[in-house]
This record gives sequence, structure tokens and C-alpha cells, in this order.
Amino acid sequence: MPRTIGILTAGGDSPGLNAAIRAVGKSAARTYGMQLIGFRDGFRGLMENRFVRLGPEDLAGILDRGGTILGTSRTRVHKMDIGNGKPMDMRPMMKRNVEEHQLEALVCLGGGGTIKNALRLAEVGIPVICLPKTIDNDVYGTDVTFGYDTAVNIATEAIDRLHSTAHSHHRIVVVEVMGHNTGWLALASGIASGADVILIPEVPYDVDAVADKILQRKTAGSPFSIVVVAEGAMSREAAETFAKLEARKQQASTDEEKQAAKREIEAFEQAQLRSTERLAEELEERTGLESRVTILGHVQRGGTPSPADRLLATRLGVACVDFIAEGRVGVMVAVRGESVEAVDLKEVAGKRRMVPLDHPMIHSARRLGIALGD
Amino acid sequence: MPRTIGILTAGGDSPGLNAAIRAVGKSAARTYGMQLIGFRDGFRGLMENRFVRLGPEDLAGILDRGGTILGTSRTRVHKMDIGNGKPMDMRPMMKRNVEEHQLEALVCLGGGGTIKNALRLAEVGIPVICLPKTIDNDVYGTDVTFGYDTAVNIATEAIDRLHSTAHSHHRIVVVEVMGHNTGWLALASGIASGADVILIPEVPYDVDAVADKILQRKTAGSPFSIVVVAEGAMSREAAETFAKLEARKQQASTDEEKQAAKREIEAFEQAQLRSTERLAEELEERTGLESRVTILGHVQRGGTPSPADRLLATRLGVACVDFIAEGRVGVMVAVRGESVEAVDLKEVAGKRRMVPLDHPMIHSARRLGIALGD
Amino acid sequence: MPRTIGILTAGGDSPGLNAAIRAVGKSAARTYGMQLIGFRDGFRGLMENRFVRLGPEDLAGILDRGGTILGTSRTRVHKMDIGNGKPMDMRPMMKRNVEEHQLEALVCLGGGGTIKNALRLAEVGIPVICLPKTIDNDVYGTDVTFGYDTAVNIATEAIDRLHSTAHSHHRIVVVEVMGHNTGWLALASGIASGADVILIPEVPYDVDAVADKILQRKTAGSPFSIVVVAEGAMSREAAETFAKLEARKQQASTDEEKQAAKREIEAFEQAQLRSTERLAEELEERTGLESRVTILGHVQRGGTPSPADRLLATRLGVACVDFIAEGRVGVMVAVRGESVEAVDLKEVAGKRRMVPLDHPMIHSARRLGIALGD
Amino acid sequence: MPRTIGILTAGGDSPGLNAAIRAVGKSAARTYGMQLIGFRDGFRGLMENRFVRLGPEDLAGILDRGGTILGTSRTRVHKMDIGNGKPMDMRPMMKRNVEEHQLEALVCLGGGGTIKNALRLAEVGIPVICLPKTIDNDVYGTDVTFGYDTAVNIATEAIDRLHSTAHSHHRIVVVEVMGHNTGWLALASGIASGADVILIPEVPYDVDAVADKILQRKTAGSPFSIVVVAEGAMSREAAETFAKLEARKQQASTDEEKQAAKREIEAFEQAQLRSTERLAEELEERTGLESRVTILGHVQRGGTPSPADRLLATRLGVACVDFIAEGRVGVMVAVRGESVEAVDLKEVAGKRRMVPLDHPMIHSARRLGIALGD
Repeated sequence: MPRTIGILTAGGDSPGLNAAIRAVGKSAARTYGMQLIGFRDGFRGLMENRFVRLGPEDLAGILDRGGTILGTSRTRVHKMDIGNGKPMDMRPMMKRNVEEHQLEALVCLGGGGTIKNALRLAEVGIPVICLPKTIDNDVYGTDVTFGYDTAVNIATEAIDRLHSTAHSHHRIVVVEVMGHNTGWLALASGIASGADVILIPEVPYDVDAVADKILQRKTAGSPFSIVVVAEGAMSREAAETFAKLEARKQQASTDEEKQAAKREIEAFEQAQLRSTERLAEELEERTGLESRVTILGHVQRGGTPSPADRLLATRLGVACVDFIAEGRVGVMVAVRGESVEAVDLKEVAGKRRMVPLDHPMIHSARRLGIALGD
Repeated sequence: MPRTIGILTAGGDSPGLNAAIRAVGKSAARTYGMQLIGFRDGFRGLMENRFVRLGPEDLAGILDRGGTILGTSRTRVHKMDIGNGKPMDMRPMMKRNVEEHQLEALVCLGGGGTIKNALRLAEVGIPVICLPKTIDNDVYGTDVTFGYDTAVNIATEAIDRLHSTAHSHHRIVVVEVMGHNTGWLALASGIASGADVILIPEVPYDVDAVADKILQRKTAGSPFSIVVVAEGAMSREAAETFAKLEARKQQASTDEEKQAAKREIEAFEQAQLRSTERLAEELEERTGLESRVTILGHVQRGGTPSPADRLLATRLGVACVDFIAEGRVGVMVAVRGESVEAVDLKEVAGKRRMVPLDHPMIHSARRLGIALGD
Repeated sequence: MPRTIGILTAGGDSPGLNAAIRAVGKSAARTYGMQLIGFRDGFRGLMENRFVRLGPEDLAGILDRGGTILGTSRTRVHKMDIGNGKPMDMRPMMKRNVEEHQLEALVCLGGGGTIKNALRLAEVGIPVICLPKTIDNDVYGTDVTFGYDTAVNIATEAIDRLHSTAHSHHRIVVVEVMGHNTGWLALASGIASGADVILIPEVPYDVDAVADKILQRKTAGSPFSIVVVAEGAMSREAAETFAKLEARKQQASTDEEKQAAKREIEAFEQAQLRSTERLAEELEERTGLESRVTILGHVQRGGTPSPADRLLATRLGVACVDFIAEGRVGVMVAVRGESVEAVDLKEVAGKRRMVPLDHPMIHSARRLGIALGD
Repeated sequence: MPRTIGILTAGGDSPGLNAAIRAVGKSAARTYGMQLIGFRDGFRGLMENRFVRLGPEDLAGILDRGGTILGTSRTRVHKMDIGNGKPMDMRPMMKRNVEEHQLEALVCLGGGGTIKNALRLAEVGIPVICLPKTIDNDVYGTDVTFGYDTAVNIATEAIDRLHSTAHSHHRIVVVEVMGHNTGWLALASGIASGADVILIPEVPYDVDAVADKILQRKTAGSPFSIVVVAEGAMSREAAETFAKLEARKQQASTDEEKQAAKREIEAFEQAQLRSTERLAEELEERTGLESRVTILGHVQRGGTPSPADRLLATRLGVACVDFIAEGRVGVMVAVRGESVEAVDLKEVAGKRRMVPLDHPMIHSARRLGIALGD
């Protein structure tokens, strides 16, 4: 039996997954004579040993395809819902399957959640290696993740289109983009599309400051504005409340306190839903201009990856196989400037990469007069 | 003073407006030595005599630009809100402005609402001529309107992207597209993007029928579905209720009854908001599959017009000037097969072009096994 | 054995082929319980009986794919090169294969050459039915062909890009687009992209008239121009020469004369190669402006079909199966306004649809001041 | 008079120029109260003092526009052709104009040639500062230039489209992309589009090796191949000849010898024209497969910049103004990893950034089995 690598895709959709699978499969076969098998639907397929061999014909024609040919799922390997009502640790079963296939490595393509799962698998002795994929660009330890460039392109093109309407109708156009709890996507697409206001989780906003900016523009003869809002953005008040609730959860000493804190956070998050729509209403009131809200949603996650994402996914896939051949596992393959490095999973799991407040994008935004709401 | 044409853009945004303005201006100047002036912000600018001369340099470089260089607004010429709390008939003022500029014609670019306004202006002796623009394609009396092709492209590309996610995550993806009270945009983008279900106002739907289709697909090994919903689509029950309310409004004999009926319709429409989200929840319940909703929204209205829309807007603009030169006013310039005709405004105002139930798109959808929910 | 339809794609590549194959297969199966088999590489595969069953899984995911999953080739069924040095009539072999599969119909997707081949097959009793596909839009008897809208989009987008360069560098940008011997593609993309000059086969051009237009623009302060040239466009002199050679070929009474005329035409066509580059040089000389030539080439033939082409291909595919079920063969499925008709192959084979000189696009071009070179 | 910055764009077209101009103007005004004036048509406009003030309204709406609102030209400041037949050093005149406007800095947007010109201006005391723009990505001293990402996108999309044709017709598709004397664009677009062969100047190729790769694919059941050729790619023989000629030019001691060497190089370059077409013919001969050549040409230079290029141009424009405010002139603003640095013009002028042979893209290409022709 030839040496074998396993691969799976987990978590949310992100353009470039198929490009990465292809690169792993092609370079494994060509350079090291290894074969590739793919598990279906993420860790769930690993548990159930649902797999497919990925030979040359399976990898042909997928470079520019969105989604993942393997399917994906969201789950936690040590607390899986297997239908009996209580979360179970399914890692032993996964380990057995990895051993049955004699996998030299299990490549896990995913974001923060996937990396945590991978580390948990490493802890029971499975030779995992992660590639950072997410449109949110929030994986700790790497300069960039694949999927992000495509999402920036989609969001920018959409905001470009919304400019027409804002301009023709003298409206405030409020656009909510993805990004999870970070502002990468909002900042990049906002600057690239010439937004007037960009609101991100890293900079809690003040509605009055936002309204002021819009009124200044109106006074200066531009009775329309584009406001780009990251899905995780919060007003100053909301951010303070959230910080308190988080602190309470951290400090909870009993299970009861923990549960109570958790419930409060959930209630808070529930109340945050539709916050973008409420923001638009508040801006209407304060400025006397009509507003329209667009939630870009899942279109940002799918479809043909950009050339830059195909290149990045390919480069990471190739490097991943080289690391496997060297026996480097328990790591994430990270981009650091022009080079690619293997970073210990323990260093990155459970962390999130926020936009630093002195990042060139934040500097650029301020210099151009884009309001960040602070 | 050279012979002069006036032009304005009214109602919602629609790609191709600038292409039409350019064609009118260029062909008027070159063929008939006429000049063009544009009124700002629709009929409001006509009333306030806010205008701009549109010479060659103003028309350069706008062919591929979205929105309208003139601005737009929504209003009714005979019942305008001018700030004193009661709607006023401002047509006399508009007539005075038209006469002051000695306009041979006033070109109004718009959809159903604009055509009604134009007819009202014709009734007081203003020489209007309309070009049918709307992304909804619902203007009566013409085969097609400009803006529609672009909107179909945008919606199709978005649904193409959502396919990735539906497929990778085994989800029901519900996409709401525009179209006002008609299903043109939903049908075209749904068929073009390979949707599994398309719900349109012309065919009231039954949630169970939709769920059945999705379950059939699941059983056949495709545990994901794309459901495209026109913003005006209604369940069978909602459609019946709405029909009753409309009938009541028609039959109302006193002002009081009319007002009451109107209020009921408004309440109904309020209740219809978020109906797409409720549909998604009902489908989740009935099928056991996760669902995700995307409301495409205003991105469908803006940005660079497609080549087909630029061509159509250009052709209509050129024909419009020829009609003006012939003295044909009080008309809409309509596409009929390969030719362009002038149709009396009286024949088209107040009517809406629904998708006929035997339209080739509906036939195609049924033949391909796309569920229409009936 | 279920009732069976055969299908093949022939001639040049054109976006929408897979959409048409999918529509034929899906509606045949669903509505009439018929199965579909596809022959590989056009008529060559029919001859060699190389075929593949096209079940639901083969038709999934191909709606938006360019090219053809069946492959294609260029050949003549009654004079095929089968490697023995002399062209052979291979129709008997094809007929045998059609009979072996008990095909109710053989659907041929193609342009002018394919329709001629199909007619020849009909003459030996094969139940053919054609769908008109070509990016050139030159099929006689139908308002439009699928592939054309996509090609117009690609060409327009390319010319949009070239505008930047023309403008920034004060250059004449000469762009050659496809279209075979007709000007459909050049006219549509030229008008849609704001070209200054459009040269098409239907209107032989005079280099001096083209240079005059460019000089006028220069004088008026626009020292740059976009010249769109159909690949079949000819100068007045070339057109006259070509007409004479064609006449000579028609009038040739002996085989010897015919061969001589053919050789002369070939020599003429050889001399026409690079004529676009020569035109650019002549324009440089006459205007004193730098020029740049771009030959768009095969990018116009491939890739994802536009939504309009997917819809058209789907509609024709569905109608085709309905005609087959009615026993209508020996026909081409044609678009006529809003409806679809079956047209006898004899009426359309060997003819080419030129742009009529009074076509709305030619009218629009002249009204806008676009020079056609006459 | 407010403090003033001058700006000009020189050399070939590159997407992002307007985004950079906008960023310089906006951040200069907002942060430092400086005004911006632009010289028309590159260094020529500087010499002739043809300039335009760039206030807020001039900078609005240009972020996503291709080309340059200032125009450009190719010239050498110390050897300008001013119509009297002999090249003249026009720097004194330029210096006078810079002094007349009391410019704090002259921002020059351009590639290698522009940087050389800027250094020559610095030598006479003009406070220049350069931003690296070129689609070729070949500017020494910076990780990346703006325009490159857009060009990669355009080229990749075109090659994606050509895949359809290659596949459907069993052809060799040979695509020539730009890149000047480097392989950046060819490598990136070739890997991103799944090319089978990529030929770049950094790796002289052997036609037999290329043909072998194509034949291997044919044997393995893929009778089609995509060959991406950088415009500067050379066969091994051509590269050797060129190296000899270059050496001779370097070693030439008399003016006569220099001129002779120059003439030989020109003759060589002339002979290299159409080398891509000759390559295609040679591949046809060696493989027995049909081939088609596409020269992508100037479409790679124009049109809407990608979001990544808009961001990069914005970031560099903002940093440039910060450097000017600090008095840092005589430098190029360079990207180095995540940061932006000012690099002395003397360090970068006259050098070219080739693709290093151990670059990750070359490594990826080899690992995936893409032939580089060596």
C-alpha cells in the first residue's frame, strides 16, 4: 500500500478549499508517491469513516470551483452530538480510522474552530496538520488566510454597486459585511470601495460620531453616505456591556454561575441581532436622510475563488505536503511575509487575530477621512 | 436658441439610465441640432427648475456608469409633499418651467409610477415621452425594460455563489430577489442559476409542496436545495387574504370604507415583511435540514449596466429622439420584438405586466422539474 | 429499453452548450421518460459510435460550465477524412449507429456548418433536429443564437478596459473581435462599449473615412479613438476584389475553372490575414497618432455562459424535446420574437444571416456619430 | 499659498493610478492642509507646465476607474525629443516649474523607467518621491507593485475561458501574457488557472521538453494542454544568443562598437517578434495536436483595479504623503512585508526584479507537475 495522507474540510465555507485539496493531492502523488483520501463532511466523516480516494481524475477541474468537494460540518470532536442526547468524545473512533488507513497525516482545512479540534486530535496522537482557511482572515499566527481575498472582492463589488443608489437617491446606504468578531473584511472592502464610514469590532462606535460624519458630508454638498458595518461591530455601550458579561463568565466559580453568565451572553447576542438595522434607523433620525440596509450574507462565502486565493491555497497545500514528508505534524502551515512556516498548534489554537489599532488599513482610513465611529 | 429637449429620471435606480441619457443627448445634437437639459432629482427638480445643460463633455464617459447623473426621487406630481403638510398639485409650476425652456419634449425615464406621473403631465399639456426602465421588467406594453438584464446577471451570479454553500453544508438556501409584484427576475435568475424551487407572485405557493420537493431531493441523495423567492411571492393563504382586501378596497363606496380598507392592506403588508425568513423556518421544520436566508436587496439595482442593457437603453434613447422630431409625444417608447414602437401612455399607465402562466420560462421551469410551489 | 434521444455538439466552441445538453436530458427524462445518450467529439463520435449515457448525475453542475462535456470537432459527414487520403461519405455508418440505438432523434448543437451536416444526415433518413449555437449570431432563420450574448459581454468588457489605455496614452486602439463573416458581435460590443468606429463586413470601409473620424475627434480635443473591427471586415477595394472572385467561382463551368477560382480565393484570404494590423498602421500614418492592436481571439468563445445564454439554451433544449415528442424532426429550433418555432432545415441550411443595413443597431450607431467607415 | 505637492503618472498604463492620486490628494489635504496639483501626460506636462489643481471634487469617483485622469507618456527627461531632431536635457525647465509652484515634493507614479527619470530629476535638486506601479511586478526593492493583482486577475480569467476551448477541441492553447522581461504575471496567472506549461524569461525553455509534457498528457488521456508564455520568455538558444549580444554591448569600448552591438540587439528583438506563434507551430509539429494562439495584449493594462490594488495604491499614497511631511524625498515608497518603507532611489534605479529561482511560485509549479520547459 502506498503511503497515504487524509484530508477533510471543516467549518464555514470559504473559496479556495478545492484548490488546496488539489494541491495537496497533486504534489503528494508527484513528489512523494503518496496517495490522498478525503473524509466527507468534516470530522463527522472521519468518525464514520466515510471517505473517498482522491486520484488525478477527482482533482481535475476543481481549481476554480467554490465550496468543497468533500462537504463540511460544524462539530466538536470531543463533544459530538451523535443523537443520544449527550455530547460524546469521539476521538478514539477517529483515531482508529486514522490508524486503519495508516495515515501519515490528517490535513484539516479550516479556521479557528477547526484548529481547536485539530489540537484535540493531536492530543490523542493523531498526526494532524492544519491549513488556515476563512473569509474572516482572523486566524492567529498567519498573515493571511485563503478565502479572504475573494470575500473582499465580492463585498467590494457589491458596495461599488450600492454607491450608484446612494448617490442617485441621496440616501445613507448601510452595508453589513461578514468578518465574525473582527474587522478585516469590513476595513478592506470599505477602503477599497470608497466608504465614508467603517465600523469594526476593534473600534466600538458612537452613533453620534457616525451621524456627525454624515451630516458634515451633507453640508459639504454630498447628501449621501456609505456606511460599512462589520457583523461583529458594536456601539460603545454594547461593547462595555459585553466586556462586563465576558468578565463575569471568566470569574464565575460555580457551574451555576457559569451557566447564568452564559445565558446572559446569549440574551445579549440575541438582542444584538438586527443591530445594523437599528443603527440605520438611528442614523435616519439624526440626519434626516433616508437609509437602506443591505446584509450581504452568504454570497461572501461561495463561488469561484480569486486568483490570489487559488495561488495561496495552492502554495499552502504544496508546503503542507513538504512538511508531512519531513514529519512535521501537530502544526498549522502559516504565511509569514514571503515565506511559509509550520507553527505549533498549541501556539495558535483558541486565539483570534484582531486588526491591530495601528494597522496600515486603519491608518489609511483615518488619513482619508473615513470615520471609524470613535 | 436651439430647439431643446428636457430629460429627467424618476423612481428606483436601474442600470442603463446614463446610457439612455447619453443616447438622447448625442442623437438629438448630431441628427437634429437639438440641445438637451436635465432636471435634477426627478419631478422634484422639474418643479423647482433645478436643471443642468447636458453638452458633449457631460455625456462623455457615462455609458457604463450605474445610477443616474441627474439624481432621482419618488413623488406624485399631482399630490406632492412640499412641506406644508398637505399634498399639492404642482403640475402648473412644472408646465411653466417646461414652457420657459420651450421644451419640445420632456423625456421621463422610469417605471410604472413614472409613467403614471407622465400621463398626468400630458393631461395638462406637457409634451412628455417615456422610456421604460426598471429592473423588475413589469412595465406594461413593452417586451422588456432596461435594467432587467443587469439585475438578472447580478442575481444569477449571487445564486451561483450560494450554490457552493448549499452543496458543501447540505443546507436549504433561500434567496429573496427583487421584482416588485412580479416574478420576472426570480424566474430568470432562478432558471439561469439552476434553482430547485422558484416562488413568484403569479403562482401562489403551498409550503408543503415546497417542502416535498426538498425532501424528494434529499431522498434522491441531494440533501441541499436552492429556493429562489420573488419579493412579492405569497403563500396561497396570503394571496387569498390579499385578494379579499383588494376587492374590499375596490368596492368601498365611502371615503371611510376606503380608508379602512387601505389600513387593512397596510397591516397585511406589514405582516408580510420577513415572510421569506418565516418560509425558511417552516422549511427547516418540515424537512429537518438547516436553512440560510439571503436577501439580495439593493445590489440588484446598481452598478455597471450589462452590455445588453447599454444597447437597449441606447436604442430606446435614439428612437425617442426620432419620435420627438416627428412630434410623437404623450407616448412610451416600447420594444416589440425586433422593432421599437410608440405606445399611447393611456394604454399603459396604471397597468402592470405579470408573467403569463404559459410563458416559456414557466414552461421551461416545469419541464426541468423546478418546483413552483403549486 | 426506454425511448432514447442522441445528442452531439459540433463546430466551434460556444458558451451554453452544456446548458442545452442539460435541458434536453432533464426534460426528456422528466416529461417523456426518455433517456439521453451523447456522442463524443461531434459527428466523428457518431461515426465511431463513441457515446456516453447522460443520466441525472452527469447533467448536474454543468449549467454554468463553458465548453462542452461531449467534445466537438469540425468535419463534413459526406466527405470525412478517415485517414486514407480521400474524403469518404460516412453517413451510412452513422445511420447504422442511430438505428442500433433506436434513436427517436439526434439533436445536433451547432452553427451553419453543423446545420448543413444535419441536413445531409436527414437526407439519408436520420431524424435530426438542430439547436442554433454560435457566438457569431449568424444562423439564418432564428432571431438569436446562444453563445452570442456571452461573447458580446466578453468583448465589451475587454473594450471597456482598452478605453483606459486609449484615453491615458492618446492612442488609437484597434480591437479585432470575432463574428465570422458578419458584424453582429462587432456592432453590439462596439456600441455597448462606446466605440468611435465600428467596421463590419456588411459595410465595406474606406480607410480615409476612418482616419477622418479620428482626426475630427483629435481636433475636438479627444486625441484618442477606439476602432472595433469585425474579423470579416473588408476595405472597399478588398470587398470588390472578393466579390469578383466569388462571381468567378459561381460562373466557373469546368472543374478546372472551379479549382482555379478556389485557389484565387484562398490566396486572397491569405492576403487578408493581419489586415487589422495593416489598418492600424495606415491609421497611424494618416492621423499622426500612435496605435495599438488587440486581437481578442478565442477568449470570446469560452467560459461561463451569461445568464441570458443559459436561459436561451435551456428554453431551446426544452422546446427541442417537445418537438421530438411530436415527431417533428428534420428541423432547427428557432427563436422568433417571444416564441420558439421549428423551421425546416432545407430553409436555413447554406444561408447566412447578415446584419440588415436598416437594423436598429446600425441606425443607433449612425445616430450617435459612430463611424462605420462608409 | 498653501503648501503644495505635485504629481504625475508616467510609462505604461496600470490599474490603480487614480486610486493612488486620490489617496495622495485626500490625505495631503486632510492631514497636512497641503494642496495637490497634477501635471498632464507625465514628464512632458511637467516640462510644459501643463497642470491642473486636484481638489476634492476632482478626486471624487475615481477610486475604481482604470487609466489615469492625468494622462501619461514615455520619455527620458535628460534626452527628450522636443521636435528639433536632437534629444535635449529638459531638466532645467522642469526644475523651474517645480520651483514656480514651490512644490514640497513631486510624486512620480511609474515603473522602472519612471524611477530612472525620477533619479535624474533628483540629481538636479528636484524633491521627487516615487510610487511603484506596473502590471509587470518587476520593480526592484518592493515586494509588490500596484496594477499587478488586477493584471493577474484579467489574465487568469482569460485563461479560465480558454480552458473550455482547449478541452472541447483537444487543442494546445498557447497564451501569451505580459510581464516585460520577467515571469511574475505568467507564473501567477498560469498557476491560478491550472496551466500545464508556463514559460518565463527566468527559465529558458527547450521546445522538446515542452512537447514532451504535452505528449505525456495526451498519452495519459488528456489530449489538450494550456501553455502560458510570458512575453519575454526565450528558448535556450535565443537566451544564449541574447546573453552574448548583451555581453558584447557591455564590452564595447568605442561608440562604433556600441552602436553595432545595439543594432544587433534590435535585429534580435525584431526576430523574436511572433516567437509565440512560432512556438505554437513547433508544438503542433512535434505533438500532432492542433494549436491556437492568443496574445492577451493591452486588456491586461486597463479597466477597474481589483480591490487589492485599490488598497495597495491607497496605502502607498497615504504613506507617501507622510514621508513628504517628514521631508523624506529622493526615495521610492516600497512594500516590505506588512510595512511600508522609503528606499533610496539610487538603490533601486536601473535594476529589475526577476522571479528568484527558489520562489514559492516556482516551487509550487514544479511540485504540481507544471512544466517550465527546462
